Amino acid sequence: MQIAESISPRLAKEVLAAKVNGTVWDLTRPLNEDAQVELLKWEDEGGKHTYWHSSAHLMAEALQQLYPDVKFGIGPAIENGFYYDVDLGDHTITDEDFSRIEARMQELAARAEPIVRRSISKADAMKMFGDRGEVYKTELISELEDGKISTYTQGSFTDLCRGPHVPDTSYIKAVKITSVAGAYWRGDEKRKQLVRLYGITFPKKKMLDDYLTMLEEAKKRDHRKVGRELELFTFSPAVGAGLPLWLPRGTQLRLKLEEFLKQIQKKYGYKQVMTPHIGSKHLYVTSGHYAKYGKDSFQPIHTPQEGEEFLLKPMNCPHHCEIYKSFPRSYRDLPLRLAEFGTVYRYEQSGELHGLTRVRGFTQDDAHIFCRPDQLKDEFLKVMDIIFIIFKALNFESFEAQISLRDPNNKEKYIGSDENWEKAERAIIEACEEKGLPAKVELGEAAFYGPKLDFMVKDAIGRRWQLGTIQVDYNLPERFELEYTGEDNQKHRPVMIHRAPFGSIERFVAVLIEHTGGKFPLWLTPDQVVVLPVGERYNDYAHRVAKELEQHDIRVLVDDRNEKIGRKIRDNELKRIPYMLVVGEKEQESNSVSVRKQGEGDKGVMEISTFAALLTDEVNDMMHRWEKEQIN
Amino acid sequence: MQIAESISPRLAKEVLAAKVNGTVWDLTRPLNEDAQVELLKWEDEGGKHTYWHSSAHLMAEALQQLYPDVKFGIGPAIENGFYYDVDLGDHTITDEDFSRIEARMQELAARAEPIVRRSISKADAMKMFGDRGEVYKTELISELEDGKISTYTQGSFTDLCRGPHVPDTSYIKAVKITSVAGAYWRGDEKRKQLVRLYGITFPKKKMLDDYLTMLEEAKKRDHRKVGRELELFTFSPAVGAGLPLWLPRGTQLRLKLEEFLKQIQKKYGYKQVMTPHIGSKHLYVTSGHYAKYGKDSFQPIHTPQEGEEFLLKPMNCPHHCEIYKSFPRSYRDLPLRLAEFGTVYRYEQSGELHGLTRVRGFTQDDAHIFCRPDQLKDEFLKVMDIIFIIFKALNFESFEAQISLRDPNNKEKYIGSDENWEKAERAIIEACEEKGLPAKVELGEAAFYGPKLDFMVKDAIGRRWQLGTIQVDYNLPERFELEYTGEDNQKHRPVMIHRAPFGSIERFVAVLIEHTGGKFPLWLTPDQVVVLPVGERYNDYAHRVAKELEQHDIRVLVDDRNEKIGRKIRDNELKRIPYMLVVGEKEQESNSVSVRKQGEGDKGVMEISTFAALLTDEVNDMMHRWEKEQIN
Repeated sequence: MQIAESISPRLAKEVLAAKVNGTVWDLTRPLNEDAQVELLKWEDEGGKHTYWHSSAHLMAEALQQLYPDVKFGIGPAIENGFYYDVDLGDHTITDEDFSRIEARMQELAARAEPIVRRSISKADAMKMFGDRGEVYKTELISELEDGKISTYTQGSFTDLCRGPHVPDTSYIKAVKITSVAGAYWRGDEKRKQLVRLYGITFPKKKMLDDYLTMLEEAKKRDHRKVGRELELFTFSPAVGAGLPLWLPRGTQLRLKLEEFLKQIQKKYGYKQVMTPHIGSKHLYVTSGHYAKYGKDSFQPIHTPQEGEEFLLKPMNCPHHCEIYKSFPRSYRDLPLRLAEFGTVYRYEQSGELHGLTRVRGFTQDDAHIFCRPDQLKDEFLKVMDIIFIIFKALNFESFEAQISLRDPNNKEKYIGSDENWEKAERAIIEACEEKGLPAKVELGEAAFYGPKLDFMVKDAIGRRWQLGTIQVDYNLPERFELEYTGEDNQKHRPVMIHRAPFGSIERFVAVLIEHTGGKFPLWLTPDQVVVLPVGERYNDYAHRVAKELEQHDIRVLVDDRNEKIGRKIRDNELKRIPYMLVVGEKEQESNSVSVRKQGEGDKGVMEISTFAALLTDEVNDMMHRWEKEQIN
Repeated sequence: MQIAESISPRLAKEVLAAKVNGTVWDLTRPLNEDAQVELLKWEDEGGKHTYWHSSAHLMAEALQQLYPDVKFGIGPAIENGFYYDVDLGDHTITDEDFSRIEARMQELAARAEPIVRRSISKADAMKMFGDRGEVYKTELISELEDGKISTYTQGSFTDLCRGPHVPDTSYIKAVKITSVAGAYWRGDEKRKQLVRLYGITFPKKKMLDDYLTMLEEAKKRDHRKVGRELELFTFSPAVGAGLPLWLPRGTQLRLKLEEFLKQIQKKYGYKQVMTPHIGSKHLYVTSGHYAKYGKDSFQPIHTPQEGEEFLLKPMNCPHHCEIYKSFPRSYRDLPLRLAEFGTVYRYEQSGELHGLTRVRGFTQDDAHIFCRPDQLKDEFLKVMDIIFIIFKALNFESFEAQISLRDPNNKEKYIGSDENWEKAERAIIEACEEKGLPAKVELGEAAFYGPKLDFMVKDAIGRRWQLGTIQVDYNLPERFELEYTGEDNQKHRPVMIHRAPFGSIERFVAVLIEHTGGKFPLWLTPDQVVVLPVGERYNDYAHRVAKELEQHDIRVLVDDRNEKIGRKIRDNELKRIPYMLVVGEKEQESNSVSVRKQGEGDKGVMEISTFAALLTDEVNDMMHRWEKEQIN
């Protein structure tokens, strides 16, 4: 804190914790020797984490005052806020208690109680928490090493805790208890179920308000909800959890996305292929996948005779390697870019499944580029271009990149030689430099066969999602003994790039739904136009309008229900259809339509053909914009 | 024979056997009482079968003369000709012996030896064949019932035989020994391997010549050979037998076929859906599939935790039923036509696999129509229209239909009530009547859940292939408890139609390759145009031509190898590309191309844009012809 103060009063106000030689410390903890110090603010993961950890203590202090016989379990910071597991004896907590707890927390925060760290011996800790009947804490203490135990105290509340924490409770300005659930002590269903109370806090009231607005917006945009409302996809327990069934409108949207990517890929010289959804077990022994994931995957499929074993394919690369091998290749044939919308199957525990973002079967917009080593960087850059085109076309204006390298301390987790890994990692880093793309480097996040570049997009309400990936691979070509004949007439080994701009179609559609709230771009949306006759007398004309628009490949519905026009407009707004065409006497007489555009309102009356041309232009402009723009 | 003679001398010459009260008899066997008699000619399955059975005896007679210590096994007629299994002791038969055997057969045939039937007691039969050392025959006789044994004699050759046969050997005019193979006696690999000699015969020399020409043509058109030459698809033992890998050109062709069908289906109100390639085992218990085929299918996929069981989907219907069930349906929502290019997996023994015609994984151009009972016939007729459109667009000028009904004596092989079966069978028969479509009725050929109408096409060299299918199903809607709310506000059960015009894309592509010899229609073929610069100096111009054509969505290659133009033309002819554009000095100066059309030769010089328009018109005309024609 003194360091921060010595720099600027403003920094001193904003700083929440300090990273000292790589470990996050309390701001108030003395520095006894020279050290590398990084000051952490709200924007830093470590700063926010410290803040929410202190908030968990603040909630515990409030709970102790409101429920004096409460026993505490653990209370960590999490991705969005914090929780505390508590044993309330006969008490229960419901939504109605939330505001009482929030009020007490605000009150305690206003007192600006200093949060004080103390080191304590194991025996003293056992006595202190034992005297208070804190059975969960004493169980935890019994497992700790003497000499490494500390407590944190604020006001009359003391917790067993490693820290770190903010200097005092006044840092916490805005408080919200978000939910309550049950949680078994230590995750063991044979032990007692405690109450898990979730909360979130912020250093400014406005930040909490924004967060709550975002939450509400997120709920409205939840892709599972919107997916059902718009009849895009469904799940059936009879088919199996995590196995999406694409309904007609969802299929339309998905095929349009695929068509768009195919169009770009064609320009970039990709060739589509199709491969089966199973492969002999041996194929995945060769790829190294079986040794690495076999035990945790869908188990092998046996044949009723002949003793063969197949696996559901968890990835498309081995099949594409076999296509590469099906003909002799020369240096002139490279790069060979094989693309497939390949559906793969990976086992996830049913509890981990979530809508389209976490499934057991998904379609990768996959491609494998087999190239000569001297073509690698150029090919990598071209893949980056494709990814930028797609993000732009779908209005993901801001994105981040992450370079995932091997964990240098755990090399045995990966297949392949050091030399190959180094070459591959260097290629990615250089490509990012060449594009001027700032990218975070993470160790230990690589795929088991090679390093990768991942893209994260920010959606319309500020959430970050991981999407596309590009991976460089020297290892599979070796394992599959891929070769080409060089200009020197000798055999050489190609390099492989794995890439998927969407990542998985399922996940991408989920993100797109939450990004747009279901208001998809005109070129992509399943239904582009709905015709609303103002009365049954105009139903025939409405259908005639629809027919004419269909001639122009426009996707159009007619709402010919016997309902008032106001009701029809309201109902169809829920369907997020970009254009509503209202037709009545006047329109019928003049062979025209009254146009209402989603989000923009009334666009006036125009002839059917004028409207068709307008819409077609808008679609073509969106779908082909990327061809006109210089992207680099 | 006397009956035939009494009708006309010409008929007497053509008749080969007679069906007497349902059993095929020799023409010379006396009729002792009133009977229903049908005279069988070459065109009748029973006539041809009799003819080839007699030919097997003729071959045996020749073999006995050429190899006096030959012992005979069995010698039946088969689909194309006949064979005889013989024990030749130390002798072997090679291709060089074929003409000698053929010559002897021709000689014996020319003698017009009468073929005479005799009934004989079991004891006499044992003695007769035992004396001759015919160990295989005596083994057969020992298993026969006394009083039902007969022999047939021609010249000095007598065979144990049920018959029937043609009256004398002169009926056999043209003879060809086609191949030789080994075959275990009674198919038991522990017993002696005999020589199996295959032959075919015809009543006219010209028919044999035509048959041999067809065989040669078939060899050239073999889809496995053409598929490799044109780089359409491949198989890899590492992936697994019977699991095709679609190469870029094959994928292009396949997607074009799918696009064509999608376009038609869209007009007919179908909705595309997409479903996973696995489903919980329970889904197939519900459908009845598991009880019927489970044991002989790919075995269940187990999960590493949670004890779930999945099956590779062998059909798409259960998934589509679940989509139907995902929302409440009203009578106004029907018919609901769900279409999917659904890849399914069915186990076949590896020895049964054959190119793309018999595989373990294939994509059905599947759709399920859920309709009200009163809509059934109309929907069925519309499906027939779609099938007729497709056959026509792909130049399958002649086709046959077969109605496959339940085996009334084996009802337990099928699921569902008698009433439902009768309704479904009646619907198909009536639809065929209404269309005036002559259809053969086969008992016992229905699917286990319902009767069907299958279509057989004749290819360019006269072979018949089974393709599309339409099936009516009252049973799955019951098993899946499908419902809709009727106009009466009550719950009703819909009827289902299963249909696949191509049957399977894999099989259809195989048939199309053999039908066209790889010369696909212009709209469908993977590469439509190849540009051939007459020298390297014109390579740039050739690429410019290609680029311009690509702007018009024309699929074009450039052969810019440093080869003589004559060589380039010959090489590219092998690739069956419809248009070759030769470009040199003259073409470059006038921004034009010299056009050669496959099968039609030189079409003169024209401007690039003129050629592009010509080709585009030709494609559009072929792809959209069906929309203009009234098909009914």
